[in-house]
Amino acid sequence: MPAPLCLVGLPAAGKTTVGRHLAAALGRRFVDLDAAIADAVGEPAAALVARDEPRFRRVEAAALAEALAATDGPVIATGGGAAAHGDNVERMRAAGLVVELAVSLAELRRRAVDGPARPLLDDDRAAFAERARARAPWYRRAHAVVATDGRRLDEVVAAVAEVHAVWAALPSARARDGYVMGLPGRAHPVLVADAAPPADELAAHLDGRTPALMIDGNVAAAWPDLPTTLGLAAAPRVIVPPGEASKSFAGFGVACEQLVAAGVDRGGVIVAVGGGVTGDLAGLVAATLLRGLPVVHLPTTVVAMTDSAIGGKTAIDLPAGKNLVGAFWQPRLVWASLEVLASLPPAERQAGFGELWKYALLDGEATWAAVEAVAGWATAPAGAPPPPAFAEVVRRAVAQKGGVVVRDERETGDDRILLNLGHTVGHAMEAEAGLAHGVAVALGLVAACQVAAALGHAPAELTQRVVDALATTGLPHDPRPYLTPGALARLGADKKRRGTHVRFVMPFAVGRCAPVELAVDDLATILRATAAP
Amino acid sequence: MPAPLCLVGLPAAGKTTVGRHLAAALGRRFVDLDAAIADAVGEPAAALVARDEPRFRRVEAAALAEALAATDGPVIATGGGAAAHGDNVERMRAAGLVVELAVSLAELRRRAVDGPARPLLDDDRAAFAERARARAPWYRRAHAVVATDGRRLDEVVAAVAEVHAVWAALPSARARDGYVMGLPGRAHPVLVADAAPPADELAAHLDGRTPALMIDGNVAAAWPDLPTTLGLAAAPRVIVPPGEASKSFAGFGVACEQLVAAGVDRGGVIVAVGGGVTGDLAGLVAATLLRGLPVVHLPTTVVAMTDSAIGGKTAIDLPAGKNLVGAFWQPRLVWASLEVLASLPPAERQAGFGELWKYALLDGEATWAAVEAVAGWATAPAGAPPPPAFAEVVRRAVAQKGGVVVRDERETGDDRILLNLGHTVGHAMEAEAGLAHGVAVALGLVAACQVAAALGHAPAELTQRVVDALATTGLPHDPRPYLTPGALARLGADKKRRGTHVRFVMPFAVGRCAPVELAVDDLATILRATAAP
Repeated sequence: MPAPLCLVGLPAAGKTTVGRHLAAALGRRFVDLDAAIADAVGEPAAALVARDEPRFRRVEAAALAEALAATDGPVIATGGGAAAHGDNVERMRAAGLVVELAVSLAELRRRAVDGPARPLLDDDRAAFAERARARAPWYRRAHAVVATDGRRLDEVVAAVAEVHAVWAALPSARARDGYVMGLPGRAHPVLVADAAPPADELAAHLDGRTPALMIDGNVAAAWPDLPTTLGLAAAPRVIVPPGEASKSFAGFGVACEQLVAAGVDRGGVIVAVGGGVTGDLAGLVAATLLRGLPVVHLPTTVVAMTDSAIGGKTAIDLPAGKNLVGAFWQPRLVWASLEVLASLPPAERQAGFGELWKYALLDGEATWAAVEAVAGWATAPAGAPPPPAFAEVVRRAVAQKGGVVVRDERETGDDRILLNLGHTVGHAMEAEAGLAHGVAVALGLVAACQVAAALGHAPAELTQRVVDALATTGLPHDPRPYLTPGALARLGADKKRRGTHVRFVMPFAVGRCAPVELAVDDLATILRATAAP
Repeated sequence: MPAPLCLVGLPAAGKTTVGRHLAAALGRRFVDLDAAIADAVGEPAAALVARDEPRFRRVEAAALAEALAATDGPVIATGGGAAAHGDNVERMRAAGLVVELAVSLAELRRRAVDGPARPLLDDDRAAFAERARARAPWYRRAHAVVATDGRRLDEVVAAVAEVHAVWAALPSARARDGYVMGLPGRAHPVLVADAAPPADELAAHLDGRTPALMIDGNVAAAWPDLPTTLGLAAAPRVIVPPGEASKSFAGFGVACEQLVAAGVDRGGVIVAVGGGVTGDLAGLVAATLLRGLPVVHLPTTVVAMTDSAIGGKTAIDLPAGKNLVGAFWQPRLVWASLEVLASLPPAERQAGFGELWKYALLDGEATWAAVEAVAGWATAPAGAPPPPAFAEVVRRAVAQKGGVVVRDERETGDDRILLNLGHTVGHAMEAEAGLAHGVAVALGLVAACQVAAALGHAPAELTQRVVDALATTGLPHDPRPYLTPGALARLGADKKRRGTHVRFVMPFAVGRCAPVELAVDDLATILRATAAP
């Protein structure tokens, strides 16, 4: 029985037009939910929602339930508000695939100029932006996002069809909670599971290629049976020495030479097992060895599962700064096994919460509460497995990062740079003091709040709230000792620097952050004043 | 006065349909040449060509002349044979832009199944392939090729419009003989000029970015005024030590560190000046520094101008083999200045003829004759400038390589691998004996002919003809001393190896070469027998 495919997203994102063409391309029936509502009530949906929204939402929920219960797996275009009311979006998820069509406000304004006006576009611009922000967490419940800015209709239809093909190929137990990166031509699943992928399930993603393993030394020692579980006991194996030093030209060269010596050829695929260091290095090796081999990421740390393994960024460091040499190289599959987190040293576990608090500060109160609910694990004894609710926290982070990456893969717009919250100052402290990445991000979050407070963008209470949160997860929360002259000098080596300025992600409130052009010198001056006794 | 835009290519490549949509997109008039002919003679073009082809060709030439003389710059879709008769294609070039729509025979067969049959598709398959081969040198006179396989109509139209925009932005003196790489989204000019680009002309291609120079040490010493000519006297400058050793992880790392130390940021662009070593290294640096910066190539050797600077391949070597780590990274501009060839050491000049003979063997008798006509320069005294006809030889090589790259950018099909003629054995000898690349290719051509002869694919006369040609240009032509056990062992490290086989480009005759799957062991056995005393 084919599963329904629901399109959600802002008004004018193109759900009805894309849905109709998509249904034709997939040979499915098309249901326009607003048209179904109009049929049911005998007046246009827009008229009913204006006159009696509560009744409209009841009729909408009933029409949605009927469409989802159909056995022919229709393509369903929902109204802009459908996903954001009641348990509609959860019922869509339970029944089939949910895809968000993403559109920027700038693009909506362009479309409004070119085409017929839509009611919401006639609203005050700020009110519309506010509505988009309020709905974003609901839309993030979708299994995938496909960006529509600057793309033709047929390109968007092809991209959604590709997401559908990737999702439909997953075993149903994975598909229900699976995330699919909706990048055209490179769509791939990002899965959060209790355990590592069984050999046959992993093999299904390797497309008949010959795998070679790049595995973190600590993970290899803690989980000696893992290669056998993965069906890779006989595969060539490169052990990546734990620690940032592996992300160097030396580490890069050694890994390439070992893989070639082990017989890796153009029919190969790299399977990367480890944290951010292993993933970043293995990704760059995959991007360049023989001018490019596919890669699969099996992240084994909280930071890797929620951040570094997602989005295709790969890199090594230079003495002048982190991640200065790299490539964008999307994986074929990302599989996060929560089981392996039990062996994570408590310090790394806590560092992972640096990234989780970042997501919470970016996303808003719901994610903040979800992270708070699992915060106790940060300070639990060594060997403690993550609580069951942790899977949901990882999935929220994956959907948040995934949505940003899909909207702005190469960090040329204002979307992807949001994920850099806490990183501008964090990276400088990390490089200078040799901090763990997550710890540096945690301190960078506090520094960012302090900068926002100094510039009048945020109240001092925001800083205090972040400090308190970090404290409950055992993270350091006073950046002052790390804001040394050396760290401040490193701000000028930030990759986001262009000329004299950096794009600094400014926190205004929980759930409200935005990039701001800031002179490197001004940033250093503010931080120096903050750090003064 | 807008220039006309002519579409050429095989029947059923899509010239009429693309032309009509392109004209609409550019706001130009559309001329379907076959329809104009039908109007003139009062019967369908196909009927006239079948009844009286000489008369058809006269009418066609007249209709073309009229369309080209129009002052409104129409988009002209020509019949499949128009470009291949008389001086039609030269008159198209003189009047405006000529773009070939490329289509593979496999794709034509697919289209024939899906759509209405075309007369030529009903021909015997071998006869059609033969016609395609005979017309290829004519179509190669186009300024650009746009590949249509697997692309939708609107994608092809957008790609041709992009080529037009790149070409129309060139000064008219450059446009006439300029080549444009028709890669969608990354179209860029490849220009062959008497001298280096003046500062203002180079700046027009840098898009306001801040340039950094990577320049070969020998070139920097021989042409000390070059940075000033280019307007880059004050730009950061990285000197690339001459020699293959620079194409290493060490050289890669040093270059990245120097550029970052010089202040290169995300607003930068790399200007690479040198031969294959500098271009390959600078291209990889550009592909990875800050996860990707634009690059401009100013090739200074025959090999770089005709091969390595074109097509976006970048790489460094591993001890196990050449070019094993790299990326595909298309430049913004390639500018070949013939002036700098005067300082090329005679040995490198001769090595360059290794690549030129390769193109001649691939392309056919016309290019073979063009290379023969300039062969005297190979053995001229040091400091001799290339003869005027040399520009045309370089342009032929550029168009040949460009067309292959556009059809098969990532070397996944059978097109791009053709350029590997002579390279499978050549690379092995080059790595083992430290030969210059062009010399290794020359010897590899002889070895390839010998392998073809041993397998009954080519007569021994082909080997003799290649040996004689190499001899007139002062190149070594006996591979036997280089076919050592070490060189034969390196065949297994070839990038084109998949499992036990390599795709070996087999020469059948001048102008007839094709990839063949060959077991590495068999290849080694044949070469060993050839090398036996």
